[in-house]
Amino acid sequence: MARRDQKPRDSKDRILAAALALFGERGYAATSIDDIAGRAGLTKGALYYYFKDKQDIARDLHHDLWARLKAEALRVVEPGGDALANLRRAFDAHLVALQNLPEAHFFLRQFWAVPALDAMGRLEHEAALGFVEQLLRDGIARGDVAPLDPTALARALVGAFSEATLHVLTTGRSDEAIAVVHRLIDALDARRDRARRSSRRDATATARRAARAR
Amino acid sequence: MARRDQKPRDSKDRILAAALALFGERGYAATSIDDIAGRAGLTKGALYYYFKDKQDIARDLHHDLWARLKAEALRVVEPGGDALANLRRAFDAHLVALQNLPEAHFFLRQFWAVPALDAMGRLEHEAALGFVEQLLRDGIARGDVAPLDPTALARALVGAFSEATLHVLTTGRSDEAIAVVHRLIDALDARRDRARRSSRRDATATARRAARAR
Repeated sequence: MARRDQKPRDSKDRILAAALALFGERGYAATSIDDIAGRAGLTKGALYYYFKDKQDIARDLHHDLWARLKAEALRVVEPGGDALANLRRAFDAHLVALQNLPEAHFFLRQFWAVPALDAMGRLEHEAALGFVEQLLRDGIARGDVAPLDPTALARALVGAFSEATLHVLTTGRSDEAIAVVHRLIDALDARRDRARRSSRRDATATARRAARAR
Repeated sequence: MARRDQKPRDSKDRILAAALALFGERGYAATSIDDIAGRAGLTKGALYYYFKDKQDIARDLHHDLWARLKAEALRVVEPGGDALANLRRAFDAHLVALQNLPEAHFFLRQFWAVPALDAMGRLEHEAALGFVEQLLRDGIARGDVAPLDPTALARALVGAFSEATLHVLTTGRSDEAIAVVHRLIDALDARRDRARRSSRRDATATARRAARAR
């Protein structure tokens, strides 16, 4: 990156950090552009050079935060590895990253309540869908994941992940959300189905042998 | 209901039916209040007697449609019955009711995309959460449902149900969504856990007896 690019990035980061702090302290609705410029130590004019309005700042901030959470989730995924193990790891890493951003909780929770902002969340949601669907599709092809429709399954799982994340943002407790999500992911294990079928077969065979021996 | 109440209800219903038809034909954004009044055979003034604006009509319509789907879902729930069977039945009945309202699909799908309307969906979502959480809480207390946190579990399930419903609205296929949702509900069965543990115990006992017999 050229040296002259650093200044703008720096101002932009200061604006985003100031906005995140203020949204956390006062809420999104009660924070003004003046407040944000003041906290960032910039003029309002400088702020408008980077952002159209408060909603634009919130959108950028939301995108930045989710990009960080997503990067942490992707970092733990083993390419070509077990699909369900990858899903568990990615969800856990995403929650740990969220726990490490306590200053962002209040803001992210508000996103669900401010309609104009929630549409942005919908975009992140669609991106997550594509990623989860590909993992599932590979897992189904390899016979690790139960042969369900991968699009419907990805939707349902991402819906569950997303609400479990909201549970963490609302209650501050991640253990409960992790236990629930792992239980749902484990339910998709095709190998467990096969083991169950084969143990049923074994039981039947044992019963037959016992009957013959009598 | 007093006879004089019937006229207003009738006009309101005509407005809602006209709006639903037009939202389906042209989309929410391209439909005007004039269009709706015209289709309902009413003056714009008469329409404004019942509704503040187009968004107000859409909100009422959305509420009416979900109330119908919810009524169908509640109708099949057996009070005090098995929690997971009730959840499966309620979800299926809700989807069947949705299939029987094909004229509403396009409108309901748009709700996810129009932020000001989506907030309304969030309210229906919260109502569903309370209902599912109570079913799960009873099931956990009776030992039928795995002992997970009922709030986190209700959130994750309703998230999955809601996205599975969106899958049906998007693809028109309900079999896939039903297969996925049933699989996730079945995963919560505590009786299955106990059966698995006891079959593992039996297998161990059989192996021990076999070893002793040698």
